[in-house]
Amino acid sequence: MESTLLEKFDQLNTQKGYKNRSEAIRDLIREKLVSEEWNSCERETVGVFSLVYDHHQRELNKTLTHIQHQHVEIIVSSTHVHIDQHNCLEVIILKGKTSIIKKITGQLASTRGVKHGKLIMTSTGSNLD
Amino acid sequence: MESTLLEKFDQLNTQKGYKNRSEAIRDLIREKLVSEEWNSCERETVGVFSLVYDHHQRELNKTLTHIQHQHVEIIVSSTHVHIDQHNCLEVIILKGKTSIIKKITGQLASTRGVKHGKLIMTSTGSNLD
Amino acid sequence: MESTLLEKFDQLNTQKGYKNRSEAIRDLIREKLVSEEWNSCERETVGVFSLVYDHHQRELNKTLTHIQHQHVEIIVSSTHVHIDQHNCLEVIILKGKTSIIKKITGQLASTRGVKHGKLIMTSTGSNLD
Amino acid sequence: MESTLLEKFDQLNTQKGYKNRSEAIRDLIREKLVSEEWNSCERETVGVFSLVYDHHQRELNKTLTHIQHQHVEIIVSSTHVHIDQHNCLEVIILKGKTSIIKKITGQLASTRGVKHGKLIMTSTGSNLD
Repeated sequence: MESTLLEKFDQLNTQKGYKNRSEAIRDLIREKLVSEEWNSCERETVGVFSLVYDHHQRELNKTLTHIQHQHVEIIVSSTHVHIDQHNCLEVIILKGKTSIIKKITGQLASTRGVKHGKLIMTSTGSNLD
Repeated sequence: MESTLLEKFDQLNTQKGYKNRSEAIRDLIREKLVSEEWNSCERETVGVFSLVYDHHQRELNKTLTHIQHQHVEIIVSSTHVHIDQHNCLEVIILKGKTSIIKKITGQLASTRGVKHGKLIMTSTGSNLD
Repeated sequence: MESTLLEKFDQLNTQKGYKNRSEAIRDLIREKLVSEEWNSCERETVGVFSLVYDHHQRELNKTLTHIQHQHVEIIVSSTHVHIDQHNCLEVIILKGKTSIIKKITGQLASTRGVKHGKLIMTSTGSNLD
Repeated sequence: MESTLLEKFDQLNTQKGYKNRSEAIRDLIREKLVSEEWNSCERETVGVFSLVYDHHQRELNKTLTHIQHQHVEIIVSSTHVHIDQHNCLEVIILKGKTSIIKKITGQLASTRGVKHGKLIMTSTGSNLD
């Protein structure tokens, strides 16, 4: 491979905290594989969904809990953080097919009163060895 | 506003589960504001970071815990999920300046043995009212 | 809508050069509709693809031209810019189904010697009125 | 490197049309370097900007031309395509500092009547050898 390309890559990796080049290349490959995984609708995968909302919003908590309870086989866990007097962060971990994870998180994000909903598309890890 | 543009937007919103158009517009505005928030280095904000790794990997758990303990004022909570016999998912919630959140999560992601690390850039919610 | 949310949005719009709020909202809606358009495989749309390569690379130009000529019904135009003594930029405009545009541009990007290939997913505009 | 990770990567590369693995790895590295390049404000780089608009829109063409003429040292070329009876695509190639490219394309995108404006962040290629 061209030595100047590798030099620049090594410089960047040092900045980012990588100990060696092959670890950094492995990470690029895994990132690519994960993004491919999410292009397919039927792959078993893992998503992490974050929701920011005002807990004073009437009925909101109840609605969010209701949606989650309809999908107990997909929702693995839910962590709640009190950010300030008004705002809550809820982080939900989901495991299942990409299409179902997208559907549930879409429903949660579009619930009235939710200020920001965002999905991390990650992986079960079993395809990344 | 052009009526056909709004018609198409309403159709999309119905699919996504929105009850009305103004809620969907508010969400587009908030998404824009959050992405601007993360362009600045000095804004106080919230990040959610997911890590997938093999818990058999020697010393990895110790290293990840060590990095987190150096930043206790930034790291709010950490949730651990056992995905399968080999793979773990750890979800870390961080609150602080965008630049520091990016630095810590960069360190965690580049640790040897971490298969996939990804950051959700969300918000404290206080700027989204 | 909440007045402080709109205030922050108006501030951002002024920075970006928008003359009024409704134009900025229309743009958010259109951006959403375009991104939905590209989720479907069978929609007629427009892509703009940029390629950076070294024109000294043997046979590269011939290969790129060959790929393009196999898809004359999709490729609308091609603009060539000499960036420096070594590097060329070629910008190709494609019109057709999203799946075919992705396939052709994937082939061009993976050709040996191409340094950077990237696709803008835009639109025919006829769905954005 | 783990052999199963490489196997999956090779499968993906074959699908995408890559002839060999090292070319695919080089492309991942270059993609990373280009995205880093655009994080800095002061790097000399290349952008490709696409604009979709209705040419019947009064004064629009004149406004777009006026903005472009104020930056002749940055704008390299402009290609115009008639998509249908109403819609035009204009593709503008820009060379200069990332901050200036972002500013000009922001102005063009926010002009009233522009339906969709999108920027490809590419590279001069001179840092990708």
